[in-house]
Amino acid sequence: MSSGVRIAVIGATGAVGKESLEILEERKFPLAHLRLFASKRSAGQSMKCLGRSWKVEELTPDADFSGIDIAFISATDDISREYGPRLAAAGATVIDDSSVFRMDPQVPLVVPEVNPESAHQAQRGIISIPNCTTTPLVMALKPLHEAATLRRVVVTTFQSVSGTGAAAMEELMAQTRALFLFKEPEVKVYPYQIAFNLLPQIGSFSEDGDCSEEIKIVNESRKILDLPQLRITATTVRVPVMRCHCESVNIETEKPLHPDHARELLSAADGVAVQDEPSAGLYPMPLPSTGKDEVFVGRVRADASVPHGLNLWLSSDNLRKGAALNAVQIAQILVKAH
Amino acid sequence: MSSGVRIAVIGATGAVGKESLEILEERKFPLAHLRLFASKRSAGQSMKCLGRSWKVEELTPDADFSGIDIAFISATDDISREYGPRLAAAGATVIDDSSVFRMDPQVPLVVPEVNPESAHQAQRGIISIPNCTTTPLVMALKPLHEAATLRRVVVTTFQSVSGTGAAAMEELMAQTRALFLFKEPEVKVYPYQIAFNLLPQIGSFSEDGDCSEEIKIVNESRKILDLPQLRITATTVRVPVMRCHCESVNIETEKPLHPDHARELLSAADGVAVQDEPSAGLYPMPLPSTGKDEVFVGRVRADASVPHGLNLWLSSDNLRKGAALNAVQIAQILVKAH
Repeated sequence: MSSGVRIAVIGATGAVGKESLEILEERKFPLAHLRLFASKRSAGQSMKCLGRSWKVEELTPDADFSGIDIAFISATDDISREYGPRLAAAGATVIDDSSVFRMDPQVPLVVPEVNPESAHQAQRGIISIPNCTTTPLVMALKPLHEAATLRRVVVTTFQSVSGTGAAAMEELMAQTRALFLFKEPEVKVYPYQIAFNLLPQIGSFSEDGDCSEEIKIVNESRKILDLPQLRITATTVRVPVMRCHCESVNIETEKPLHPDHARELLSAADGVAVQDEPSAGLYPMPLPSTGKDEVFVGRVRADASVPHGLNLWLSSDNLRKGAALNAVQIAQILVKAH
Repeated sequence: MSSGVRIAVIGATGAVGKESLEILEERKFPLAHLRLFASKRSAGQSMKCLGRSWKVEELTPDADFSGIDIAFISATDDISREYGPRLAAAGATVIDDSSVFRMDPQVPLVVPEVNPESAHQAQRGIISIPNCTTTPLVMALKPLHEAATLRRVVVTTFQSVSGTGAAAMEELMAQTRALFLFKEPEVKVYPYQIAFNLLPQIGSFSEDGDCSEEIKIVNESRKILDLPQLRITATTVRVPVMRCHCESVNIETEKPLHPDHARELLSAADGVAVQDEPSAGLYPMPLPSTGKDEVFVGRVRADASVPHGLNLWLSSDNLRKGAALNAVQIAQILVKAH
């Protein structure tokens, strides 16, 4: 890839796709050529990246995918299922944002700060990125586990509507506006009104009553941290916030881990920034995390209800580190290896 | 009190005060006389309750508090500290909503569905009601503890702005409106913008980094459940919701407790309603809980990360069961005893 990398973005006009183009530009990605794919509705429009304008093509089974080095997919599960293997067969390394391939043993699930070496084991030509709540969680857990060995993790998430996509962001805005105009808020994307409300459901429910996001957090964290027996449980909740996901994380470790030590470990961890002077008003929040690359961690404090307990609170931009940034970082690993 | 009860409401024009008058009316409280107190700003206005109109008096140290049977206080800590003992000295039984007296061993801390007998042990003439997150929590924990013995509780709260009071509700509305008008949202009540944001802070911080609400949940739950050693930890978060607090609760019990059994126990518990058919879209949320008396519990499911683990999710109207309703119910216990 010495003369530059040929990139394709599938789902280019979506919330994550747009973010990908921005990040390629910010990181001065060594781009040789860019192909943008979207649905028929968006095809034909132009998008800017790295000083040039690129036309959006319609994604169809007939499209010619030859000559693509790396393809980012961030669309629907169905699109990933159909076009992931197709792009890989045409020679691209696919970096996929869906849950379709994540638990496939032949597909690495990669967070560059946690398990970068896995990126080179894409036996099917596909690399998955984790869901947007797992990524910041494992980034905070990794350094603490290395120092003190995780015993158990209990996590509750506060997830913004942008995790669902652009339509959900519009829905939160439209519902809020409707309420101010004394109109009935229209409910389309979510099962209930999200404006000024909380929905304890992300995805669909299993027979045991877990929702799919909760199951993803458990399974994906285990795979990325390479701790198949990790004791972890999750509760996932949608909140009326536009962007950034927050998580309340309670951990128990085998060895003692003082909050000061935990803060040092987190400060030293790649991609993690500690914001933890609560009395001075310094703690992670969605608004100041928006558009930022780091996973922000704070409210680190001892939990006296178990021998080695710790509570912490994190905030991370779900469209960046939770999706587009993580994918571009994986592409950078691949480029570097060539 | 055979000819009716003489009630005083201190903080009558506040969010909780107004709710108290509504609940006295709903419950056809045997009222003989009602005195309403508020700050100078609100004094002079009239409020309706039980078919009559009552004038709001200014609360001053010179006020004559004689002839009051039961006084509800829901104002500031300072008001409770000053007027609680003053009203008790004048012969009233004070039912106080502040945190000032809650941990006083001579002051009972009462949730009628959990420890009603304590209401008769008001050695100082003062009964405290718990903070608005503790009340629904102990109501859900009590039946589970009786059946399976609590081993540990990890709770994360999602608290609406009405917990802070009427000014905070106005602030969330004003900030939201400002954003739609492309104006800078004004920040007055909270340290940061609450509209479309999350604040992991309720109250002020201790040296250990816990905020006062987290400490209250721990201490008050132990006192009400009469489990001084209960292993419990809390993380409390303000969310951009107008009314009702939600809680993500993870428990471990000594004995096995199947989710079906937990649901049965919760369904049978006074004041608790189970909403738990997630696949059919039935789970607790703030909007449908608003104005309701019950604590709604759902998302009950096994947590496989410990031998006897259970996750659950609850929603409760913080102005009703979390405050005014709990206080009126205590008054009803006192009236019944006479």
